[in-house]
Amino acid sequence: MDQSIVREILDKVRAEGREALTAPEGKQICDAYGIPAPWEGLATTPDEAAALAEEIGGPVACKIVSPEILHKTEAGGVIVGVEGAGAVREAFDKIVANAKAYNASASITGVLVQQMASGGQEVIIGATTDPTFGKVVAFGLGGVLVEVLKDVTFRLAPLDLAEAKSMVDGIDAAEVLHGVRGADAVDVDALAAVIQRVSTLVTDFPEIREFDLNPVFAAADGAIAADVRILVETGEVTEPVRPSQEEILRVMNRLMNPRSVAVIGASDTEGKIGNSVMKNLLGGGYAGEIYPINPKADEIMGRKAYPAVGDIPGEVDVAVFAIPAKSVAAALTECGEKGVPAAVLIPSGFAETGNQELQDEIVAIGRRYGVRMLGPNIYGYYYTPQNLCATFCTPYDVRGGVALTSQSGGIGMAILGFSRTTKMGVSAIVGLGNKSDVDEDDLLTFFEQDDNTQCVAMHLEDLKDGRAFVSAAQRTTKTKPVVVLKAGRTDMGARAAGSHTGALAGDDKVYDDILRQAGVVRAPGLNEMLEYARSLPLMPAPKGENVVIITGAGGSGVLLSDACVDNGLSLMDIPPDLDEAFRKFIPPFGAAGNPIDITGGEPPSTYEATIRLGLEDPRIHALILGYWHTIVTPPMVFAELTARVVEEFRAKGIDKPVVASLAGDTEVEKACEYLFDHKVIAYPYTTERPVAVLGAKYQWARAAGLL
Amino acid sequence: MDQSIVREILDKVRAEGREALTAPEGKQICDAYGIPAPWEGLATTPDEAAALAEEIGGPVACKIVSPEILHKTEAGGVIVGVEGAGAVREAFDKIVANAKAYNASASITGVLVQQMASGGQEVIIGATTDPTFGKVVAFGLGGVLVEVLKDVTFRLAPLDLAEAKSMVDGIDAAEVLHGVRGADAVDVDALAAVIQRVSTLVTDFPEIREFDLNPVFAAADGAIAADVRILVETGEVTEPVRPSQEEILRVMNRLMNPRSVAVIGASDTEGKIGNSVMKNLLGGGYAGEIYPINPKADEIMGRKAYPAVGDIPGEVDVAVFAIPAKSVAAALTECGEKGVPAAVLIPSGFAETGNQELQDEIVAIGRRYGVRMLGPNIYGYYYTPQNLCATFCTPYDVRGGVALTSQSGGIGMAILGFSRTTKMGVSAIVGLGNKSDVDEDDLLTFFEQDDNTQCVAMHLEDLKDGRAFVSAAQRTTKTKPVVVLKAGRTDMGARAAGSHTGALAGDDKVYDDILRQAGVVRAPGLNEMLEYARSLPLMPAPKGENVVIITGAGGSGVLLSDACVDNGLSLMDIPPDLDEAFRKFIPPFGAAGNPIDITGGEPPSTYEATIRLGLEDPRIHALILGYWHTIVTPPMVFAELTARVVEEFRAKGIDKPVVASLAGDTEVEKACEYLFDHKVIAYPYTTERPVAVLGAKYQWARAAGLL
Repeated sequence: MDQSIVREILDKVRAEGREALTAPEGKQICDAYGIPAPWEGLATTPDEAAALAEEIGGPVACKIVSPEILHKTEAGGVIVGVEGAGAVREAFDKIVANAKAYNASASITGVLVQQMASGGQEVIIGATTDPTFGKVVAFGLGGVLVEVLKDVTFRLAPLDLAEAKSMVDGIDAAEVLHGVRGADAVDVDALAAVIQRVSTLVTDFPEIREFDLNPVFAAADGAIAADVRILVETGEVTEPVRPSQEEILRVMNRLMNPRSVAVIGASDTEGKIGNSVMKNLLGGGYAGEIYPINPKADEIMGRKAYPAVGDIPGEVDVAVFAIPAKSVAAALTECGEKGVPAAVLIPSGFAETGNQELQDEIVAIGRRYGVRMLGPNIYGYYYTPQNLCATFCTPYDVRGGVALTSQSGGIGMAILGFSRTTKMGVSAIVGLGNKSDVDEDDLLTFFEQDDNTQCVAMHLEDLKDGRAFVSAAQRTTKTKPVVVLKAGRTDMGARAAGSHTGALAGDDKVYDDILRQAGVVRAPGLNEMLEYARSLPLMPAPKGENVVIITGAGGSGVLLSDACVDNGLSLMDIPPDLDEAFRKFIPPFGAAGNPIDITGGEPPSTYEATIRLGLEDPRIHALILGYWHTIVTPPMVFAELTARVVEEFRAKGIDKPVVASLAGDTEVEKACEYLFDHKVIAYPYTTERPVAVLGAKYQWARAAGLL
Repeated sequence: MDQSIVREILDKVRAEGREALTAPEGKQICDAYGIPAPWEGLATTPDEAAALAEEIGGPVACKIVSPEILHKTEAGGVIVGVEGAGAVREAFDKIVANAKAYNASASITGVLVQQMASGGQEVIIGATTDPTFGKVVAFGLGGVLVEVLKDVTFRLAPLDLAEAKSMVDGIDAAEVLHGVRGADAVDVDALAAVIQRVSTLVTDFPEIREFDLNPVFAAADGAIAADVRILVETGEVTEPVRPSQEEILRVMNRLMNPRSVAVIGASDTEGKIGNSVMKNLLGGGYAGEIYPINPKADEIMGRKAYPAVGDIPGEVDVAVFAIPAKSVAAALTECGEKGVPAAVLIPSGFAETGNQELQDEIVAIGRRYGVRMLGPNIYGYYYTPQNLCATFCTPYDVRGGVALTSQSGGIGMAILGFSRTTKMGVSAIVGLGNKSDVDEDDLLTFFEQDDNTQCVAMHLEDLKDGRAFVSAAQRTTKTKPVVVLKAGRTDMGARAAGSHTGALAGDDKVYDDILRQAGVVRAPGLNEMLEYARSLPLMPAPKGENVVIITGAGGSGVLLSDACVDNGLSLMDIPPDLDEAFRKFIPPFGAAGNPIDITGGEPPSTYEATIRLGLEDPRIHALILGYWHTIVTPPMVFAELTARVVEEFRAKGIDKPVVASLAGDTEVEKACEYLFDHKVIAYPYTTERPVAVLGAKYQWARAAGLL
């Protein structure tokens, strides 16, 4: 890779104030990075053109080269399939004449004589600068159908060859590239190499705003681009400021594990936000210092009150703001002067109400003093390991492994209600609101190393810095699942996001592909996010892909199988010896295979024997149980035996994910609760949910490299 | 349409024991039905071939014609693009030589000289005989990509032009046919006409097993098939026996509204099925006669017992079988002799355990005596308007508008538990089990005219007679929604269905398209089927497509918008006057437009005013409410005001579907119950479910022709 050539060309283009590169410039850049572009040369006379064509051999394409002519075809500046010296000379003249007619003042550099790439499969390889994620590479099939079907895939640049290959295999029509109807398979390695080089190029030169190889002809023996189009950023190219991981962690640690909390706007008056926050801090049992700030009171709820943060004798880790928007700037300045590292800005009345100016002002204050800010426009936050309930909402204190964040207050309330009703154990619930400063990657950086957190679930409408998020998510995913509910998924949804929290949702396909690249488990909806959050920390990581369904209801077995396919799970192909082992326990007309249909009238011992076998055999990696309510095996009997057997194996060090679907009368609800209490994921009246949750766990395990 | 030509050809082919038609035969059949096939002629000598080619003009295709050579290309029997008399003669000789080399004993009829159809867009039009649905037509794009992406659609034959056009528009890549990248739009009417004619042809001649026009070249000025392939049924062609609607209704009426029920195997012994059935019949309050049948008892539960059905003095409408499988045949014969019209066969031990023979035996008995049979291998059935609980399961008596059926007992138990926990009002719950006789179309025929039923929800793994189901569903859908959970949707699922209830699940794409054609609302999973069943009867039919979201939580608004797109709902483009009207009620920073974001801190009056406006304005057809739990507007306050306003409008004759998503602490659960009690569909902790339910209602309304 010859960076100096590229540097020189780009500098020249930018110096000339040009946005688009000429074809020869594009070719030079491709050559410098080993991106196969067609053999070509620039001709300034008809004879030069004819000579070049002879040198190249075969039919050639002739294209106008002029900095002023961007749409060459429109200008009549392209003639393809030209063969023979006479025809080439003629084409030269015609193109130049067309170009002059199109734009009399255009300066004509010459005519590009280009090898005609053709044959094989047309694909598109490109790169663009996404507002959220920065440099992003794209791969898709060429042609009308794919344009219509939008079969294209994206990744963050740069990427390695393996990731590039995953793009080639990641389109719906990938089979076409592997040879169908007797056609040759294309050279996937060559395609991956091109993608990888493009990703390196745009990373090395951030001023390349857009890069298009369209089409690329992919054949069995390589890939060659037929056309190159490069656009550069004419303005300034800046990268977002990113504090180091250590820096983030230092402040986040003080935010989540504070030794002292000041409540600015603390109040004795019922119904005020400053009153609710004080009550929740005190009632929740937070053990650190609590400093009420209120210039009109000496004491609030038995704690000495101070007129201002500056008056507090000791150090303050967190300042919770419970004052109107207009008073925030002054109080924040005081926090800065006092050296408070973290401010929790509950008040609304900033960007979300159109007051961007006021938000910009507080962001500037925060930057100046190095105060990191949560919010504004949030409900506050909970961190149960510290009994910390710094919010005006209802308190919550059931400890557990999941940390949840939400960009919207409404979703925060839904998290709270769902948590309480399902007794979901949480480590943290954090409101992010307008995300003027602290955002998902800051929190992920904390949760990544937080031993109290085994799973992170985030509701988000946008990402301020997609790249920082991806790297935090990729790190975190290695040890714990990150579940994301990305709102504004659809065009219509994205439009709605535009009118909320000042956020502009990006194109969902880019989000979807890159969240997957980040190893994130994407929840399709709010309820799924909540159920994944509740269940994932309770399940061990699976050690392999072999899933087995054991069911008392054949009907459930069919639906559970459907759900396995929907959720990307592999039903194990039961080997004969295992099949035989299962058959020993089930009636002759029961179906072994997978699902294993033990049939409906069986006693508890049949459920127990088959579940035991499923846990025992090391070739089986996860179990899906389908229970059918009968008098012979009532719901609680099933629940108790299942929990007992699973726990017995856990004690022996054999811990596999076990999920259950319970079909029966209302007693199954209590049975499901019992199973959940014993870390067996169980749902009544649904065959889809338990499988979806298991699917989410598998998705994480694959992303974490465990499978 | 000249049926006599087709009849003649097909009779000849079948008389000769052939399966495949020759190309000239195919061409003749196409011509007879106005299906545009290329101009062609059969040549038996090189000179004839040359003459034909000259007559046709332009390049021609030469193809071997031999009854023994089915795969012409493989045999070297096809040469395309032949032009000029010499070349045509040469091609003739070469083809004949190749064919002889390929199969020395093949009788060579001659060489087909065919106009080369080309240009335009390649599509495939075909027909096949589906084991479930009979004659089915197919339409898809031609080419490798579509083969890979499986972008094809099916409909029941015959169909009208409108339905045929819906096929052309029903493929994912339909845009390609309407002209992209400057290409001409193809003649959709011409394509629809071809599809329609093919559908008529295969309907008129059931012995045509498969029919392929592949490819058809579709252009701006018409469509022409380049190749025709027709396969006929060599064996006997039979149609299933279908009782008339009146006949079905007569028996179903006696089954669902019986004046008397005999319980064969009635018992005083706790735990026996015959004991549970008796208890449920008596306990449920069924007012008709109950006749216990038990040769060893004089009286059971206070009712006179009879040794056999024949001993009962009065008429018997329904006989419930609670005896072992092996005793069923004899008892059924007695029922036949007694003239009992309906038998409910609870026992298992038939086809589902591999005992097909026993099942065939009872089917024969039923046919002989004209006894219609439910089951075997079922839990029985419930019909609440008659307080009829003829089942060994737990009783259920909450009356309401939904009739549910299930092929599997486990799913039946899930229906029961879900019903009880949600207080779902049902008219009927019916087990279908092995469907040896009565199946979904029989029940639909009853529910269609049953005023107690406003919605039908069916779990099924297969359809014994898909065509009968479609016509019953199409009729029923006109007045009430039919929800179907089709299990065995996926390849993996279909495999599992194969091992259950003796059912072989069909290809899901065929099912999916034809269920849509039937006007059925397909539930993606068990829980959705249950929720649709619960909610659809509570909602009025929408009168138009304009959906408006009113939300207190902007975050919910975005997610609700996502869900609208996912569920095929149209967010209304709010006209300026309406926008202004909404803006009067919401804070200046709230977002009008759609979603209408009233912002989180608003009092009940804001919710009320905006909901009123939404109900009042006739341009709005349905409301989706997003509630955010705050102290200012607590959950029950929201629930009460919403129910009150909706009911006030209902009383005035303005009834629109209203669904709500409640985000908040656990109090929202009670609020949702309250709203459901007042026929406002409301769910906590989910933005997807209320919208999915509304989407299902819309799907039905469209199928019913109401929109």
